[in-house]
Amino acid sequence: MNTLTAYLERNRERFLTELFEYLRIPSISSESAHKPDMARCAEWLREALLKAGADRAEIFPTGGNPIVYGEKVVAAGAPTVLVYGHYDVMPVDPIELWNTDPFEPTVKDGRIWGRGADDDKGQGFMHVKAFEALAATDTLRCNVKFMFEGEEEIGSGSLTTWCAEHKEMLAADIILVSDTSLLGMDTPSITCGLRGLAFVEIEATGPNRDLHSGLYGGAVVNPVNALCKMIGSLTDEEGRIALPGFYDDVREFSTAERAEINAAPFDEKAFASAIGIVEPRGEKGYTTMERKGIRPTLDVCGIWGGYTGEGAKTIIPSTAHAKVSMRLVANQDFKKVTEQFIAHIERIAPQYGVTVKCTPLHGGYPYVAPTDSAAYRAAARAMEETFGRRPVPFYSGGSIPIISTFERVLGIKSILMGFGLDTDAIHSPNENYPLENFYRGIETIPLFYRYFAENDRK
Amino acid sequence: MNTLTAYLERNRERFLTELFEYLRIPSISSESAHKPDMARCAEWLREALLKAGADRAEIFPTGGNPIVYGEKVVAAGAPTVLVYGHYDVMPVDPIELWNTDPFEPTVKDGRIWGRGADDDKGQGFMHVKAFEALAATDTLRCNVKFMFEGEEEIGSGSLTTWCAEHKEMLAADIILVSDTSLLGMDTPSITCGLRGLAFVEIEATGPNRDLHSGLYGGAVVNPVNALCKMIGSLTDEEGRIALPGFYDDVREFSTAERAEINAAPFDEKAFASAIGIVEPRGEKGYTTMERKGIRPTLDVCGIWGGYTGEGAKTIIPSTAHAKVSMRLVANQDFKKVTEQFIAHIERIAPQYGVTVKCTPLHGGYPYVAPTDSAAYRAAARAMEETFGRRPVPFYSGGSIPIISTFERVLGIKSILMGFGLDTDAIHSPNENYPLENFYRGIETIPLFYRYFAENDRK
Repeated sequence: MNTLTAYLERNRERFLTELFEYLRIPSISSESAHKPDMARCAEWLREALLKAGADRAEIFPTGGNPIVYGEKVVAAGAPTVLVYGHYDVMPVDPIELWNTDPFEPTVKDGRIWGRGADDDKGQGFMHVKAFEALAATDTLRCNVKFMFEGEEEIGSGSLTTWCAEHKEMLAADIILVSDTSLLGMDTPSITCGLRGLAFVEIEATGPNRDLHSGLYGGAVVNPVNALCKMIGSLTDEEGRIALPGFYDDVREFSTAERAEINAAPFDEKAFASAIGIVEPRGEKGYTTMERKGIRPTLDVCGIWGGYTGEGAKTIIPSTAHAKVSMRLVANQDFKKVTEQFIAHIERIAPQYGVTVKCTPLHGGYPYVAPTDSAAYRAAARAMEETFGRRPVPFYSGGSIPIISTFERVLGIKSILMGFGLDTDAIHSPNENYPLENFYRGIETIPLFYRYFAENDRK
Repeated sequence: MNTLTAYLERNRERFLTELFEYLRIPSISSESAHKPDMARCAEWLREALLKAGADRAEIFPTGGNPIVYGEKVVAAGAPTVLVYGHYDVMPVDPIELWNTDPFEPTVKDGRIWGRGADDDKGQGFMHVKAFEALAATDTLRCNVKFMFEGEEEIGSGSLTTWCAEHKEMLAADIILVSDTSLLGMDTPSITCGLRGLAFVEIEATGPNRDLHSGLYGGAVVNPVNALCKMIGSLTDEEGRIALPGFYDDVREFSTAERAEINAAPFDEKAFASAIGIVEPRGEKGYTTMERKGIRPTLDVCGIWGGYTGEGAKTIIPSTAHAKVSMRLVANQDFKKVTEQFIAHIERIAPQYGVTVKCTPLHGGYPYVAPTDSAAYRAAARAMEETFGRRPVPFYSGGSIPIISTFERVLGIKSILMGFGLDTDAIHSPNENYPLENFYRGIETIPLFYRYFAENDRK
């Protein structure tokens, strides 16, 4: 057992105890009531970086939530790795479906249960602890920079500006990120594609108050009926999105590329059964792997209007709302898609009786990573060593809009070496993260640094 | 000034004070938390009947909310009037839109503000006070029976059975009801038609938990999208309901009948402006008066699913719900329509990935009243005297399902002599009832008794 491995072994319990402290802070970025928790969480993380061995660590205030930056320079000529993560988490409702308190982490059945256990506190904290181990055992051969934001789940609005303002400080050879999933413990993978996102809220307003559905029904346009009709018309019978121009920029993958995507082991039955559906369904002519990786989507994430309580209340609601998420793929531009969406909704809205207002809530570009880079090779070698199997490239359906922003603003590519699993229920009740993945990540990251330092830097 | 008029004049203030006591009881039948208020309200009403001069007044427990029955027999051979009303009220949300506490009635701008001020505590209580005045001045020439239920807003489930079980006790020549509106203070009217109702809740269930819309989007049927598509398809571009068989039993009115309906004064602009819409819209080929009186409807009264909080949460929701109200007209059968609706929804539901469950929440038959009866003539004469103008027959779009049930179970017709106004905002925030209408009702009702007693009883 070498020094590093011994260090990791010796400090396992403490790493978990520290992660639990981090998880207990309810840093929900989309709910303004949690503003003080965001600041508290950032400060906690800053101190964690210093304790782990950073030369410096600072809080950068922004118009939104603070950004935590830390660094350690080992040598002027050494390759520089910029680690990115986020300390904000998703909301927890429906809270009644959680089996444990989302902000009181617990270990059960070999998993850490709690909001952020995987996304992205658990995964981000692996980097802090891997760095600590390297620094403590004097085996760090790369300069390391950390940047943790508190707005990833709401569009990374502040980070984009902040990156543009701190290009020099952030200069690096590669950005290293753990905020994605493995195809499985037996199928390690590195994410090579991310979908973009256009997220728009629609508000349909009809009469100036809820009306008696008997006295007015038939003579007044019902905004819920109208909203349903509009949304219903946005997808066709073949699972395609019926938004004019929507597919114009979509990159069609070659037969060879599609074969590679479909060659990755994927258990369709297990996928369906894990989420309690009979079978997956989607756009005609594509496989499940393609549908969730390289094809765009349109999903209503939330809808509400009128009476939603117990029993019957016979009204025509005054307003109706829907939150619509469109996942985008290369080479769609979220700004163009958002404009297309809003223009289309305004065009198909009823001409009388209902007014429609669309509000873009956030957006991000899709991203494609190269598999022939030094960073990819280092990551693949590191994972091969800890998993005992060479990782496969994978196109994820998720969005980390900031990854494409990094490339556009900082000119740095990212390597997406995530350790999550599909069963981690991120964004859902009962989010969890296997202990094994947490520790495997902490073992793998130092190997990445070693191979990246040894390798060429192209 | 005759004795009766003098009595009414002398007791005006007390009548209002008593009504306020009645309005303060939050007897919301659709919310189980208000169960104790239902019992309290029933008991208050029983005592009010006794104080008003009833020979007897009783609470009849039911499987649901209690029924209050009271009576006074003046002579074995006298005509018998059965007064019907309901002491339950609608829910109050969205509570934030109320200008006053819904259960702390206040008088402002000549109106009584509060939940139930019109529907139906205000209107029902006019009968108790009119009866008190007749009894106190010894001018009552009819036997009077009162029946007040606590489930009108949720389908009158208990009353139907109870009526069947108490046919003898309830024997009467006419049922007198004030639970409808006037076309206006200048256009007194008697309601001759009521729409029926079929109310169904749809639950669409997709994955067994909310899913990350990126990781799963495109490969899984989204139950909100599916629900919108189903609901959107239920109405066509001409405002007709696209439910197979839905119009089969709809009575088409003759040209003469439609002319009579459209002859009633109706200010389309004022109607639209009062509810803040540009112009009324509905089924092609019909006027606003027809659309809300003699044509059936399909309105979503409430819809919900997924994330409805602040900001963006990128999920595929696990479930989606909608409450759908269909107003029915002669000669539609709510049971048949409910079956048609459910069968159709099940037929158009996605075959994989989403399961649909429909729950009928309540229903009622439409009703048509004759204008050539002794009761109609008595009511018309009474109103002509207090309004100075002959009332017109009116087809209301509202539903009082129990009215058609009375006819089918008890074999007694009803006379719908309501004193509400369209501006009373029943079922909405800021429900109100003009003081003038409250007192005008109390003056008119004794005249109905007088003319009904004088008239023949056919």
